[in-house]
Amino acid sequence: MTPDPSIQSIPFTELARRFGTPLFVYDGDVLAEQYRGLRDRLHPALEIRYSLKANPNVSVCALLHALGAGAEVSSLAELLTARRAGVPAGEIMVPGPGKSRAELAACVDEGVHAILCESFGELRDIDELGRDRGVRVPVALRVNPAFETRGAGLAMGGRPRQFGIDEAQIADAVALARGLAGVRLIGIHVYLGTRILDEDVIVANTRNILELADRQAERFDLPLELVGVGGGLGVAYFDGERDLAPDRLADGLNPLVTEFRARRPHTRLVLELGRYLTASCGTYLVGVRYTKESMGERFAITDGGTHHHMAAVGIGSFVRRNFPLRLLGRASAEPAEPWHVTGPLCTPNDTLGRNVALPPLRPGDLLGVQRSGAYGLTASPTLFLGHGRPAEVLVHRGEAYLVRERDRPEELLRGQRLHVLTPAPGPGERRPERVT
Amino acid sequence: MTPDPSIQSIPFTELARRFGTPLFVYDGDVLAEQYRGLRDRLHPALEIRYSLKANPNVSVCALLHALGAGAEVSSLAELLTARRAGVPAGEIMVPGPGKSRAELAACVDEGVHAILCESFGELRDIDELGRDRGVRVPVALRVNPAFETRGAGLAMGGRPRQFGIDEAQIADAVALARGLAGVRLIGIHVYLGTRILDEDVIVANTRNILELADRQAERFDLPLELVGVGGGLGVAYFDGERDLAPDRLADGLNPLVTEFRARRPHTRLVLELGRYLTASCGTYLVGVRYTKESMGERFAITDGGTHHHMAAVGIGSFVRRNFPLRLLGRASAEPAEPWHVTGPLCTPNDTLGRNVALPPLRPGDLLGVQRSGAYGLTASPTLFLGHGRPAEVLVHRGEAYLVRERDRPEELLRGQRLHVLTPAPGPGERRPERVT
Repeated sequence: MTPDPSIQSIPFTELARRFGTPLFVYDGDVLAEQYRGLRDRLHPALEIRYSLKANPNVSVCALLHALGAGAEVSSLAELLTARRAGVPAGEIMVPGPGKSRAELAACVDEGVHAILCESFGELRDIDELGRDRGVRVPVALRVNPAFETRGAGLAMGGRPRQFGIDEAQIADAVALARGLAGVRLIGIHVYLGTRILDEDVIVANTRNILELADRQAERFDLPLELVGVGGGLGVAYFDGERDLAPDRLADGLNPLVTEFRARRPHTRLVLELGRYLTASCGTYLVGVRYTKESMGERFAITDGGTHHHMAAVGIGSFVRRNFPLRLLGRASAEPAEPWHVTGPLCTPNDTLGRNVALPPLRPGDLLGVQRSGAYGLTASPTLFLGHGRPAEVLVHRGEAYLVRERDRPEELLRGQRLHVLTPAPGPGERRPERVT
Repeated sequence: MTPDPSIQSIPFTELARRFGTPLFVYDGDVLAEQYRGLRDRLHPALEIRYSLKANPNVSVCALLHALGAGAEVSSLAELLTARRAGVPAGEIMVPGPGKSRAELAACVDEGVHAILCESFGELRDIDELGRDRGVRVPVALRVNPAFETRGAGLAMGGRPRQFGIDEAQIADAVALARGLAGVRLIGIHVYLGTRILDEDVIVANTRNILELADRQAERFDLPLELVGVGGGLGVAYFDGERDLAPDRLADGLNPLVTEFRARRPHTRLVLELGRYLTASCGTYLVGVRYTKESMGERFAITDGGTHHHMAAVGIGSFVRRNFPLRLLGRASAEPAEPWHVTGPLCTPNDTLGRNVALPPLRPGDLLGVQRSGAYGLTASPTLFLGHGRPAEVLVHRGEAYLVRERDRPEELLRGQRLHVLTPAPGPGERRPERVT
């Protein structure tokens, strides 16, 4: 074990001292490496858009944009974030099965590259907004394909879904869109599955999607300016999982792109990536507050848990598996022993790791949950028990930048209003007797 | 179906119009009824403390305090909330396996009734804080009992846990506490299980806890000023579940209290209640944005979902069951048909109800997820996809009070800092070719 593991030569212990724990640390080098590792191998015509839901921190988004990524946003706040991060509106696309009128209006007013339209009703709403403003809003149909994808954590396609327009309904959607003066139909978008760790599945998905786009474009004489081939690229979290190999991905995807572009040289092809880009750059640092033994088992109770990192806690998964977790900042020659690493919340579910092999722990120890750069804060019940959000730090070229301030307790009360109301007298009301 | 269901004569549709959707609405009458229904039947010596984690809204807490409840808080923010809501420090107790030094210090400085101490290490930390300030801090030992509880959703006790001090270690804990000048050991606290819907289980729990307290007090000659008998009282959410009957609870609990007080007339007995008090008063109002059919199934896509009400969505449960869900604001003579009620998020898990029998729905319809007053916002990933927190309204004696403002998109960026960093040039860096 490294005695003092560091990020770009800043020891984790120093980051913990400077910024406190719990703390999310993102390594800008790892982020850049992960992005470039794929970007440099992929066919240059396959654009990458960063899906902000994985980690909506504005500085993380800005770094990805500086590296060359566009953005995929799912709400007004994400649109605002991407724009503040410097992403041009023309490189932003917007999915979402239930966009509000305000969200759609902002997309139109900002001039995003495409609204990914998910229903007939939405098509009509977009049309109305476009006509009000005298513009034709660029829209890509999100299609729920008839084929299914295998090998994905959450399969999409091939079954009834709230997302997109069924493949069988495309004819009707195109006919509708053609009659709408406020809409300009520019392409097709398909999203299939998430957490895919098999390159062949991704390649097969992409082939299917490109064929579908081609087929529909031919059939309806669509001006295919944009084809979104989804994403869903996973990262390995657990024992027995293997990270995707960028060259195998590129070897499979690039010929498809070349072939497609030979037929349609003016179509922009877009891959959306969230988890794949940010997961591996993040470490969730927690400090051990107490250790204890209960009925023969060891517990390290830390200052972090479910409220910041529900994915690591594994709520929502059927099988509880540990994220990689390690002791940081000191070496230990003592043999590892099983530890339950738990959080400060009053629920037995608040467990970052069960039976993790770690050297003997003591209060003040620093632990790092690795692969925590995606779906950390954003996917966690940050209000639960009122501990607030932790700080986030982005380390870049040897400097540590605070990119989110830690919540103070008052933060949790922001937006709340106190009305002190007098209850109506109850029938036979008794106040509890006080024994003091 | 009532054409225009209302709360205290304010129609839900009017609330939706005034405050927008999605919206949490709490009915102060139902809250008062629920509190009094139990309070008026219980032995007056059994105090009720409201567990803020169920619903930490400051006005909800204030109303419960006005009705007579003390508080149980698990963080600085909850302590602040309870105090702002008017709860005297002397009626507040504080559990939590990993309290921070700042939290403990605030408890001591505010003068809470008792810190529920969960480990030997914490006992020493409290002592240090007490000695620094020249006070003896009132502490109750949270005990992890050797016996287990059956019939609870999450069983506690009888197994290794991060909570409390094992029953077998009490002798050591008492010995330690007696040697600490900054600590005053005033009692024992036990918490067993959650979501219990069987009165007999609660009564048996309470009997076991009182016996344990008695036994330990006798054995160690403890000054038993406080015994916390836990809580864990559930409410019925799903088909086949039945609400607890307050009279059956009182019939079982009151004799235990009478008997205990005969032996120890000066012990305060405390029951902590969260979900039981607030769940039934709350309705989560969502508006239908779009309806669609996909492969023969009907979807109503609403403006609310997982990010506000993960409990209803059922993430974390092994079996997906629907919370009670109804159409509000209009009558329909048409026969019910199965609807999937989904949210605006880009994940298939974002489903408020699967195959719910509802009349034909259309955009603009108002739906209410009932029994949503507990573990709604507080237990949900409110940052997910950046839609922000909804408003909360408390209706009391015919008036509607806004008790939480709806987040604006900027709110999601609060606390974040933008650093625009220039990536180091990568080896063989290529920027993606842009086809426009």
